[in-house]
Amino acid sequence: MKITKDLYQSNLVLLTDFYQLTMAYAYWKSGKGEQEAVFNLFFRKNPFQGGFTLAAGLDYVIDFCKNFKFERADLDYLEVMKNKDGSPVFEPVFLEYLQNLNFTCDIDAVEEGTVVFPNAPLVRVRGPLIQCQLLETTLLNIINFQTLIATKAARINIAAQGEPVLEFGLRRAQGIDGALSASRAAFIGGCTSTSNVMAGKLFGIPVAGTHAHSWIMSFETELEAFQAFADAFPDQCVFLVDTYDTLNGVKNAIKVGEILRSKGKEMIGIRIDSGDLAYYSTKARLLLDEAGFPDAKIVASNDLDEHIISSLKSQEADINVWGVGTKLVTAYDQPALGAVYKLSAIKQEDGTWEPKVKLSQQSLKINIPGFHNVKRYFSRGKAVADMIYLEDKEIDPKGVIIIDPNDATRRKRLMPAFYQEEVLLKPIFKMGKLVYTIPSLAEIKNRAGNQLESLDKTHKRLVNPHLYPVGLEENLHQLRMELVLKAKKFDNGMD
Amino acid sequence: MKITKDLYQSNLVLLTDFYQLTMAYAYWKSGKGEQEAVFNLFFRKNPFQGGFTLAAGLDYVIDFCKNFKFERADLDYLEVMKNKDGSPVFEPVFLEYLQNLNFTCDIDAVEEGTVVFPNAPLVRVRGPLIQCQLLETTLLNIINFQTLIATKAARINIAAQGEPVLEFGLRRAQGIDGALSASRAAFIGGCTSTSNVMAGKLFGIPVAGTHAHSWIMSFETELEAFQAFADAFPDQCVFLVDTYDTLNGVKNAIKVGEILRSKGKEMIGIRIDSGDLAYYSTKARLLLDEAGFPDAKIVASNDLDEHIISSLKSQEADINVWGVGTKLVTAYDQPALGAVYKLSAIKQEDGTWEPKVKLSQQSLKINIPGFHNVKRYFSRGKAVADMIYLEDKEIDPKGVIIIDPNDATRRKRLMPAFYQEEVLLKPIFKMGKLVYTIPSLAEIKNRAGNQLESLDKTHKRLVNPHLYPVGLEENLHQLRMELVLKAKKFDNGMD
Repeated sequence: MKITKDLYQSNLVLLTDFYQLTMAYAYWKSGKGEQEAVFNLFFRKNPFQGGFTLAAGLDYVIDFCKNFKFERADLDYLEVMKNKDGSPVFEPVFLEYLQNLNFTCDIDAVEEGTVVFPNAPLVRVRGPLIQCQLLETTLLNIINFQTLIATKAARINIAAQGEPVLEFGLRRAQGIDGALSASRAAFIGGCTSTSNVMAGKLFGIPVAGTHAHSWIMSFETELEAFQAFADAFPDQCVFLVDTYDTLNGVKNAIKVGEILRSKGKEMIGIRIDSGDLAYYSTKARLLLDEAGFPDAKIVASNDLDEHIISSLKSQEADINVWGVGTKLVTAYDQPALGAVYKLSAIKQEDGTWEPKVKLSQQSLKINIPGFHNVKRYFSRGKAVADMIYLEDKEIDPKGVIIIDPNDATRRKRLMPAFYQEEVLLKPIFKMGKLVYTIPSLAEIKNRAGNQLESLDKTHKRLVNPHLYPVGLEENLHQLRMELVLKAKKFDNGMD
Repeated sequence: MKITKDLYQSNLVLLTDFYQLTMAYAYWKSGKGEQEAVFNLFFRKNPFQGGFTLAAGLDYVIDFCKNFKFERADLDYLEVMKNKDGSPVFEPVFLEYLQNLNFTCDIDAVEEGTVVFPNAPLVRVRGPLIQCQLLETTLLNIINFQTLIATKAARINIAAQGEPVLEFGLRRAQGIDGALSASRAAFIGGCTSTSNVMAGKLFGIPVAGTHAHSWIMSFETELEAFQAFADAFPDQCVFLVDTYDTLNGVKNAIKVGEILRSKGKEMIGIRIDSGDLAYYSTKARLLLDEAGFPDAKIVASNDLDEHIISSLKSQEADINVWGVGTKLVTAYDQPALGAVYKLSAIKQEDGTWEPKVKLSQQSLKINIPGFHNVKRYFSRGKAVADMIYLEDKEIDPKGVIIIDPNDATRRKRLMPAFYQEEVLLKPIFKMGKLVYTIPSLAEIKNRAGNQLESLDKTHKRLVNPHLYPVGLEENLHQLRMELVLKAKKFDNGMD
């Protein structure tokens, strides 16, 4: 998959915040540009007040990094930027530096379709300060959005309890790629198909759709409209029944269904897009059953999300297929994940790594320092806890304590020897070379399904989920505490 | 501006819902493909519980329509689609038809930067049914999102009372174009600059930004970091003061400000990105003033929106420049506008137009039939009411009654002769030919400013605004009532 090359004529090197370029310039001026650093991309809270998050977007990130290169047109744009006194913002020698800049970072990341939790890194970037900064904004844009939508899709699919969920949010999505990325992430999160034909073409996602209200309205009668559609698509008849009167629409669908049947064809079903879906689906089911169409599916749509689907399920609505749009592709109730990208260590002249923290009046916003990774422990195939740990400290297989990063009194003792374990950050790039075999979208979707399966169902509850244990290994916790207290020397952070 | 050509290698003809293609095929099969129709794009409610909406996105729409063409790769994708029995979904002759399809519609639209209200068309498309359908989804995607963000930006700028608002939402935006389109729309809505360098390059929007917390953290001390930044950018120093301790940060900024001054330079100001912005801005102002920096600006950021800015204003926070990101570019509190695109009339074989309505259990969702337009009446430069009217009915200059489309008891009598008037839908394409002179982005932004100026301030109130009068001209109201009652013949729509 080459989304940036297929879709965009130029690469995305300028899809960044201007301050990344001013910082790059200032690092270069101050001679720090090549100093090695480690940054971590992570989020602080599961979205939608949920109990898990589903990582997505890595494939775009890989493509962005592979094609990372300042092109002539990019430099031309930067070259003409002027200070108030008319002098250029960026010295020509710096632009030359950018022109010759090759991507040489190490990137380790959680694979797409992995279940992840707050505070643990999704992506870790190690490399020269300038490069680390120049990657920040694009990585955040990509991972923030696709992870958000994959998670929303997973929640909606959990609510649908295995019944097909069709994504058709294109018309309400936030821009062109807001739609394309969302279709991709929704598929990863469990959706069966998309309405977005371009997403179908680019990503190989199955596309679905039949007709709209306008189709019905363009004919003199609904019956004529259904019949004309059946003439064109005898094998794909899902009749939209609510243009004028829903139950009368069902009756018309049945009439055309009978004609189809007389020709050896079978209608697939009906779609209801308005009104009380519990009421109309039940009435429609009765009509269909009585008329001898017990296998005709009822597709429902109209501002659905996981909560409305759960409610319809609990009311025993007779709905078999769920069409979701706006609420899914915009992540309506929380349209941003809020992941950040923070410096956690920097290499000193003597070759040692100096761990770094950023303080904040809000304790939640203090990052995790050092060169760290995440390990997941499993028991009989079920995930039991995630541990964030310093890569250079040994883990005692006989016992470790993990400590909640936001509440040092919440701790858990683990016996690593008793569990299976998986290191979640996988090597993606080594010194700028891709070392990862990119899975297909189908493999990613499959992984997501398995990952959700490995999670206890109490963590997947849509409301008030059971908190999955994620903690800092004791040495890392200590390091963080020391650094925070040292940095708070001015006063004690309580003004 | 050529966004689709500059950004995308292929045009956006497949950025559509699959059902547009199945309907196109079925129209073609049934011989209705060339039947002329009129569709209107409109929304039903101002977003953000506000009193107005600011139209944006037309430039993208124009570009999409100008480049509307099925290319070989698009047809190749459609050609391999198969039914369950292995037969092709689309007959080869239909794909040939698509290949030869040229855009021949009339498009009339509200200009970008125009203040608009619910129910009135933003875009009216007249042309062959197939073409009208094939435009629907892309037009909705573009107009829905850019209009939403332009409106959000206008609200935030109203809250900022003329002080500069900088947009820097790229990292939290919904995908690549979710960021680019948002930067463009935010600029139209009144923002001064963007952090998004690619948006700067593509659209000519001024870009802004200085440095992040990571800049500070990469040095041993904050003072060193400020000094190094000042060495690189003596004319552009906005120091981020809250990495460790906000007020100590201000003191360090002052120290470097004094060094700059000794070299004949002046720091621009400081930025606060966390903590209580009212408290810290006031304390910082005092420190800056006492140190002899009364002109240093205080930039504030951290999850700002129009409500938080209003609150900070009412608390007399000492903030001069507002940095907004997530809440603006995702329209956080309402991430979709919900505009729709509805058939309102279809040409009969005898050449007359047959008006059309779609019913709904929700009265709010019944569309406005016929070939209609919108007129705005002005008195002394202020907008007084919008009238939606049938183009073929004459308007009596001595008196018209306009009727609220959602409440027939709300009416207003107008004497058109007493007012200036403007027809809001302007001809954009005639028979597929562009007849509109595309304004520059600066002109659009300027228009938006003037349009907001023409609106009484009670309609611009952020909470509980005064409802601006928009109504159906009497003949149109009658037509709609008749069509609805006729269509509800089955029962009376109350089951």
